[in-house]
Amino acid sequence: MPKDDFTMTQAQSSKLPSSSALPSIPMKSNIGGVNRTCHAAVLESFREPLCAREFSVPERASQGEILVKTEMAGICGTDVHLWKGELPIRLPVILGHETVGTIVSLGEGVEKDWTGADLRVGDRITWNSTTSCGQCYYCAVKRQPTRCPQRRAYGIGYPCDQAPYLLGGYAEYHVLMPRATTFRLPDELATETLIGAGCGLLTAIHGIERTGLEWGDVVVIQGSGTVGISALAVARAAGAARVLVIGGPRSRLDSALIFGADAALDIDAVPGSRERIEWVRRETGGYGADAVIECVGHPGAVVEGMEMCRDGGKYLILGHYCDAGSVLWNPHIVTRKQLQVFGSWSSEPRHLKSAIDFLVRDGARFPFGKLVTHRYGLRDAQKALETTASWQCGKCVLVPGEG
Amino acid sequence: MPKDDFTMTQAQSSKLPSSSALPSIPMKSNIGGVNRTCHAAVLESFREPLCAREFSVPERASQGEILVKTEMAGICGTDVHLWKGELPIRLPVILGHETVGTIVSLGEGVEKDWTGADLRVGDRITWNSTTSCGQCYYCAVKRQPTRCPQRRAYGIGYPCDQAPYLLGGYAEYHVLMPRATTFRLPDELATETLIGAGCGLLTAIHGIERTGLEWGDVVVIQGSGTVGISALAVARAAGAARVLVIGGPRSRLDSALIFGADAALDIDAVPGSRERIEWVRRETGGYGADAVIECVGHPGAVVEGMEMCRDGGKYLILGHYCDAGSVLWNPHIVTRKQLQVFGSWSSEPRHLKSAIDFLVRDGARFPFGKLVTHRYGLRDAQKALETTASWQCGKCVLVPGEG
Amino acid sequence: MPKDDFTMTQAQSSKLPSSSALPSIPMKSNIGGVNRTCHAAVLESFREPLCAREFSVPERASQGEILVKTEMAGICGTDVHLWKGELPIRLPVILGHETVGTIVSLGEGVEKDWTGADLRVGDRITWNSTTSCGQCYYCAVKRQPTRCPQRRAYGIGYPCDQAPYLLGGYAEYHVLMPRATTFRLPDELATETLIGAGCGLLTAIHGIERTGLEWGDVVVIQGSGTVGISALAVARAAGAARVLVIGGPRSRLDSALIFGADAALDIDAVPGSRERIEWVRRETGGYGADAVIECVGHPGAVVEGMEMCRDGGKYLILGHYCDAGSVLWNPHIVTRKQLQVFGSWSSEPRHLKSAIDFLVRDGARFPFGKLVTHRYGLRDAQKALETTASWQCGKCVLVPGEG
Amino acid sequence: MPKDDFTMTQAQSSKLPSSSALPSIPMKSNIGGVNRTCHAAVLESFREPLCAREFSVPERASQGEILVKTEMAGICGTDVHLWKGELPIRLPVILGHETVGTIVSLGEGVEKDWTGADLRVGDRITWNSTTSCGQCYYCAVKRQPTRCPQRRAYGIGYPCDQAPYLLGGYAEYHVLMPRATTFRLPDELATETLIGAGCGLLTAIHGIERTGLEWGDVVVIQGSGTVGISALAVARAAGAARVLVIGGPRSRLDSALIFGADAALDIDAVPGSRERIEWVRRETGGYGADAVIECVGHPGAVVEGMEMCRDGGKYLILGHYCDAGSVLWNPHIVTRKQLQVFGSWSSEPRHLKSAIDFLVRDGARFPFGKLVTHRYGLRDAQKALETTASWQCGKCVLVPGEG
Repeated sequence: MPKDDFTMTQAQSSKLPSSSALPSIPMKSNIGGVNRTCHAAVLESFREPLCAREFSVPERASQGEILVKTEMAGICGTDVHLWKGELPIRLPVILGHETVGTIVSLGEGVEKDWTGADLRVGDRITWNSTTSCGQCYYCAVKRQPTRCPQRRAYGIGYPCDQAPYLLGGYAEYHVLMPRATTFRLPDELATETLIGAGCGLLTAIHGIERTGLEWGDVVVIQGSGTVGISALAVARAAGAARVLVIGGPRSRLDSALIFGADAALDIDAVPGSRERIEWVRRETGGYGADAVIECVGHPGAVVEGMEMCRDGGKYLILGHYCDAGSVLWNPHIVTRKQLQVFGSWSSEPRHLKSAIDFLVRDGARFPFGKLVTHRYGLRDAQKALETTASWQCGKCVLVPGEG
Repeated sequence: MPKDDFTMTQAQSSKLPSSSALPSIPMKSNIGGVNRTCHAAVLESFREPLCAREFSVPERASQGEILVKTEMAGICGTDVHLWKGELPIRLPVILGHETVGTIVSLGEGVEKDWTGADLRVGDRITWNSTTSCGQCYYCAVKRQPTRCPQRRAYGIGYPCDQAPYLLGGYAEYHVLMPRATTFRLPDELATETLIGAGCGLLTAIHGIERTGLEWGDVVVIQGSGTVGISALAVARAAGAARVLVIGGPRSRLDSALIFGADAALDIDAVPGSRERIEWVRRETGGYGADAVIECVGHPGAVVEGMEMCRDGGKYLILGHYCDAGSVLWNPHIVTRKQLQVFGSWSSEPRHLKSAIDFLVRDGARFPFGKLVTHRYGLRDAQKALETTASWQCGKCVLVPGEG
Repeated sequence: MPKDDFTMTQAQSSKLPSSSALPSIPMKSNIGGVNRTCHAAVLESFREPLCAREFSVPERASQGEILVKTEMAGICGTDVHLWKGELPIRLPVILGHETVGTIVSLGEGVEKDWTGADLRVGDRITWNSTTSCGQCYYCAVKRQPTRCPQRRAYGIGYPCDQAPYLLGGYAEYHVLMPRATTFRLPDELATETLIGAGCGLLTAIHGIERTGLEWGDVVVIQGSGTVGISALAVARAAGAARVLVIGGPRSRLDSALIFGADAALDIDAVPGSRERIEWVRRETGGYGADAVIECVGHPGAVVEGMEMCRDGGKYLILGHYCDAGSVLWNPHIVTRKQLQVFGSWSSEPRHLKSAIDFLVRDGARFPFGKLVTHRYGLRDAQKALETTASWQCGKCVLVPGEG
Repeated sequence: MPKDDFTMTQAQSSKLPSSSALPSIPMKSNIGGVNRTCHAAVLESFREPLCAREFSVPERASQGEILVKTEMAGICGTDVHLWKGELPIRLPVILGHETVGTIVSLGEGVEKDWTGADLRVGDRITWNSTTSCGQCYYCAVKRQPTRCPQRRAYGIGYPCDQAPYLLGGYAEYHVLMPRATTFRLPDELATETLIGAGCGLLTAIHGIERTGLEWGDVVVIQGSGTVGISALAVARAAGAARVLVIGGPRSRLDSALIFGADAALDIDAVPGSRERIEWVRRETGGYGADAVIECVGHPGAVVEGMEMCRDGGKYLILGHYCDAGSVLWNPHIVTRKQLQVFGSWSSEPRHLKSAIDFLVRDGARFPFGKLVTHRYGLRDAQKALETTASWQCGKCVLVPGEG
């Protein structure tokens, strides 16, 4: 699985200004308001360094909205794809769709979080990056709310040149729009644990729900990034008999072992697809796995992964949030092995609730907080993005209050 | 969807001897026994005319076996692929895996059919072309008996140079091996109705069972061959709100309309994939279908068909019994549309029972017998195969007692 | 199954004033407003005749609301239970939760129906009698919106001594509150067809969805009231191999046969539970049915019905909307027969959409309009209720514009 | 939940001879053969002490059979019911349907265990107590093999006055009939662990499979006997968010806590049904549990347990293997709460395989071997039965080689 396409080349990288050299005071006049101001790291041109910009902070939240002071924002692999222009978004954008913050102001009519718990200024909360309309064909008739055409994601789908501007996590303040689904966080859940899991955990929970893993299944995880580690944790917690992980680099496979993988195969050590398939067969009594979960994002992984399923097994395509292009594939395998293949897009509020509950309950067994390997101040946002883009680190996070 | 690969070229066709010119008395000495003899059409070399051969007929059935006089044998599209050498079988073989006959002799210990009904000499029966072992990992642990490695199919997997020789439908007599799953046919079910449905109906019933069509679903069927028409009938009977069929030639689309299709699109009239997808969108309120069933067997149909699904919809790959090669495909569609994709291989005895019950119950609504457009005597087996290979006819059948 | 409990005794009946004797002009001063007025039949005391009352009609609909002129209102069996005080409601109430009307005025912000179709004054519409909040534990986390604690039903849960008063179908005008889920009716769907089906069809669609009937199932329906006939229609449409109906009186069993029942057993002719169970066994090859649907509402029917299931079969308790008391029951049957038992409460908007689509599509096969045996003007509401309470009629409807 | 019915009264108990006083050499002439002999504890009259009898041991296993030397036999609660005559069996019977032994002789044609592993003399094995025919309506058409009418269980359904006599676990030797489904045990699995789990674990695995517990469910277990502890273990392993156990006596609740219960309620301390329901509500945020598993066997537990479910929740009736009589029950609860209720009977070979795999994998987390509180020699079989009947102990086992 070549990763070139997703990694900045040496050449590109050298063209970037050292992140510490970025001016932290805006190069342009601020876009927003007048009074109190805050900083944000803004994506203004694809494949160009993020710009530090200053925005006015509203005095109080408007009706139905919440004003939040950002405590921590995760850097997701999707942010790298966004930076590269691989997803169709309109600029400028404040990136960041995995965020925890504290409530500064509650707009009129906002009294409770999604679970019905009271909200108060000072509460530490997180939220879903998107909100479905609840009333369209996909929301109501077909119950596929993640496919609601009205969904736009914080940190992705809202340009920051329109009010209320502060709609991404790479900023000191964040505005939550009416109908945002929020969750007051229990004290025993560390912010770093939640951001360490990030949207990867939500993605995994939703995908595995759709696939219907059964207790006692033998599971293969393709990929050891955040989604892969999350899928491993959920599969393990859901009673998988064995979980095998295929990925890299070595440090992530070590995390996989800490999270309970029975075995981990390093794709750098075993670069041949045929050999990896044979390894799975050997580890599964010759038959292949009951379920294989793709968390890679390369089309070739899908072709390889279907061969890793036992006949009648399940295959979950979870890593293809971006369009990574086509691959030669023979659909005969689906008929012959009578496979079940599932896709899953984004997640719903109940998956975030499920993730929070899971982290509180099983955080000791699955130490997501330790996946965070790099902390950056907001002014180092570009560096955080680059580090993530190397695919060699654990999770990178921004802590606006630091640095 | 080019069909060239599956159709004999003009050149090949002209090389074949006129079927009526085939000697009906064996060109080689007979392979089997001595006493009473019978004829069979034998595939001895791929892409060469079938040979008429003479076999001895056992005086009585051996222990656990049944000796049957063939009443009618269906020509299945798979037989064309077998004839072309596209499936890995050992020759010589008596083709024919869709057969009805009358019992001539019951071996010791054979007293009942699969449903527990008494069997007697003279009874008209049909049977599954394969038998699973019932005890292996796939039969017992994972309940995927159609993937039992011990399955071999009458008319496909048993060479006729080994006892008991007569293990295919293109012959005057047929031997059923111990553990064969037989079904005594009710008088009200015409043989031609059952053979008109053929293994396509079993395939459709099994595939749709795995997919889980829901009452009120909007369904698209890709392909109007026997599997496609059968899938249409089952979807219709199962309460589909609308069933759209895409296929050809025109005569088969007319059958589709008789079987209750709400609309039928002729791929000769609309050869562009994009236009066909647009047609489905228009016919489904802009969203695509709840379920799309592929009954074509060309890889390109799979790529096209997934685009015809609504988000969160189901896609059944039912036509890829043969390996028809690879196609460029983008797995992103499965994630983005959060599809469910299913495969289904062959069928189990309970699907044959279900088919028989269905034909008795709903035969008037779904006149499968009328799909039979050509009847041939055994000596015209090659001609029957050629006619089928043209993909322009309805169902062809062999009636050994005729001609 | 004794019906006494649900039928007014002779004595009670004789105490009721002849409905034509009811004053149509209010006995009390009107409850509502001043200007334009309309009549409504109001339940003021349990087991006392409905009172004809006059209400003011708002000049135009308030924000988010819709004002409708009632075209037809169905009398549901539940209305009888409400009249008897068997459900915990607060009086006075305008009964009627199955209603069709035309839009008189659209409140600000109301532009589309639930399917997204434009709404205009003069449109003929229907609506769900309840609306879930969409945000609570049951709506959002567990996706059981029919168990939302905020649901109140038109014609049941809204006393008519509070604005906006007109919240039931037994009235010339009806107000729909904000967030009501409405459906513009296609011209080809007669009002009488929809009201003939009533909420029974929604109930059946929801219940059968939860149960998961499979194509080819053998189904028994206990009860031949509106829910029973609806369940029969849906089971038939969903491809049931056989549908047996047990109920009465004879006229309803005749309707069942028109709707496609394979056989109908009259409980008056076969009053013994044991005999009815034996009848089902005989009709199902000795095993019992794949699925049995209870649409009776008497606890004894549940005990009897579980015996009618084959082992591993499904049992749907659909008729126990009211608490009809306890019964001696042995749970051993659920373990021994390894049954699956389902309950289903009310219905969701998508079930109403499904019902409308079904009636448009299959109205010829299932003539729900013909179930309407009695039409009454509004002033005869009490008589309509009494006729329904006799359980000897088909569907009774109120047509405010008549009489 | 009164247990009187299931416990021997003081009076009955005092009538039993002290088990150590039982003659170990048969009081009657032996029933079986001549040569080598062995002892067995035989139930000859209900509610009378088991009789020690001597049987001949076949020199070698007959065709298709296996001769096993019993290593350990579990005493199951069902054995108590059998002893009391509460199940319709024909006497005399050698009880014991949970057995481990070593192969003494393999009959002709027996070469592999159910998983395909080679069998050899000296191998330690276990087996399913019943074998389904594989061909009947329930085995084949409806795939409910545990309801196959041909099933008879070792230790229950085979009188020991007919060859091959030794068909129960309370004996030094055991004969396995043709088609028995055996499992060679891995060295790392202690016999006591497997027998400690016993058929309760198989029952729980099957029942939970049918119910479909989901990862993250909140689960209540009613009962802390072997089935209850097993259900707890499986629910825990399958990722239940919380598992609450209600039962007794205290020692068993301590086991429940060791097996990972989040809380355990002692029914002796909280004898009121209403209080227990309230306790569950409090422990589940006021809603009730996602799934409640009944492992008690008293009808009243079912009525109570349904109240412990949240709306839309699942209820599994797993403890009613015996007919414990009827109870007053209101089916309205199933409709109103739209429950799903499941039953499950016995288990299939794949559940035994699943149990073995589970014990090997998770034996440290769920120490089933420690549930064994009493070991007896064969001559103390009656005492073992009495101890079990007190319902105050853990698991009792017979070790024929001891004592």
